[in-house]
Amino acid sequence: MNIDEIIAFHEITQLKYRYLRAVDTQDWTLLASVFAANVRTWYDKGKLTTQGREAAVKGLADHMGPAVHSHHIAVHPEITLTGPTTAKGVWRFQDIVWFDKAHPNPLVPQLEGGERLIGAGYYYDEYEKENGAWKISSTGFVRIFESVEAMRNNPDVTLRSEPAYGKLNG
Amino acid sequence: MNIDEIIAFHEITQLKYRYLRAVDTQDWTLLASVFAANVRTWYDKGKLTTQGREAAVKGLADHMGPAVHSHHIAVHPEITLTGPTTAKGVWRFQDIVWFDKAHPNPLVPQLEGGERLIGAGYYYDEYEKENGAWKISSTGFVRIFESVEAMRNNPDVTLRSEPAYGKLNG
Amino acid sequence: MNIDEIIAFHEITQLKYRYLRAVDTQDWTLLASVFAANVRTWYDKGKLTTQGREAAVKGLADHMGPAVHSHHIAVHPEITLTGPTTAKGVWRFQDIVWFDKAHPNPLVPQLEGGERLIGAGYYYDEYEKENGAWKISSTGFVRIFESVEAMRNNPDVTLRSEPAYGKLNG
Repeated sequence: MNIDEIIAFHEITQLKYRYLRAVDTQDWTLLASVFAANVRTWYDKGKLTTQGREAAVKGLADHMGPAVHSHHIAVHPEITLTGPTTAKGVWRFQDIVWFDKAHPNPLVPQLEGGERLIGAGYYYDEYEKENGAWKISSTGFVRIFESVEAMRNNPDVTLRSEPAYGKLNG
Repeated sequence: MNIDEIIAFHEITQLKYRYLRAVDTQDWTLLASVFAANVRTWYDKGKLTTQGREAAVKGLADHMGPAVHSHHIAVHPEITLTGPTTAKGVWRFQDIVWFDKAHPNPLVPQLEGGERLIGAGYYYDEYEKENGAWKISSTGFVRIFESVEAMRNNPDVTLRSEPAYGKLNG
Repeated sequence: MNIDEIIAFHEITQLKYRYLRAVDTQDWTLLASVFAANVRTWYDKGKLTTQGREAAVKGLADHMGPAVHSHHIAVHPEITLTGPTTAKGVWRFQDIVWFDKAHPNPLVPQLEGGERLIGAGYYYDEYEKENGAWKISSTGFVRIFESVEAMRNNPDVTLRSEPAYGKLNG
């Protein structure tokens, strides 16, 4: 481990944090900025797969949007440099997602609104440097488990979903 | 990114971890030590606002205490140095809070005891160096969502709340 | 804080991430590789205690296995070097564990299958360098809280437990 590896580790983890902030605050401009031009996504072991930056952003924007309030955290980064401008990373993640309304979702069928998903798994990422800045060139995940609780008829649950999605000036 | 920025990043994240340990182990002496003298807090977009170290500690101590077992985690730190002795930071957080008994809470009204809150959002912090050590000079948060589940009449749920709040010698 | 301390911090946190990956992907070979020869474990304030690498691995493997899908995350690392080849660390953790089937568990009695545990607390670890590589020489935890929800009769909950436990080639 040397100082250059520490700096690369730091820059790549910052990249991933921006990615996760973009997804959950639904900032699709920020999301585009973290992807390499030819990024590949293969969410949930390939159930949702895209190729290229535009398709990757559209894929996420389509199945999120006003029907969803999501919270994805990624921790335990294990990053390996695979070349002067390439790296790969493994991260544990956890997600809590509220499906506020019925909306087609390629990963979770038959949502009626009022469901809460709680899941966990691993991200398997690849990164590359474009013009001196790290970008995500491939990302996907494999779950440990995923639970969905239908709560629309449960009078003991109250949910406050913020329209600004956690943004300061939303 | 250089080594001085790496060290500042490390020191500021350590500061935040002590803050979170102070809150959830209810160690108000430790909490006072992480705040700048004139710290401002503005929790939940300003619903609970204080100015000055003593008021900040009292604000948290008053609405926690023996009625509550809380777990706040902050991840995805994005820290920016804004001057030689100042910085700002954005963090994703998640909280799971058990309200063991009825107790007035400025952020969650009408608690009767037996509720579990699960929430997520972003902290927006400011930091400054006082006598060579980083302190929190401003902290507040904006939620993505917050759910409250009333569980006191649910026979399928058992809760073990530890009096030591996770402390080793509690 | 200097560069050597930054590198030690990084190596020790990587060690912990491998430990957590080993536990939740149930990779007992990987788990053995993170423990010092004479490691001591004292989970849940000593309810499950072992001495030596073989006993530590067996202790975890026995109460996990096909009956369980677990997700333990550790964050907020506060690491202190205590000598040239020794260190200690405090970490916040959170666990979500699905008990898929009835199975004896030394920490959670009377499981019938279909329960979900959600808990939080602190790990208190010790580390030592063996042949130039950091290993866990002692690990245990103290909880803030632990809840268990029996969900086997709840028709509003669906659970997908992955046989590969999040592994890429599982």
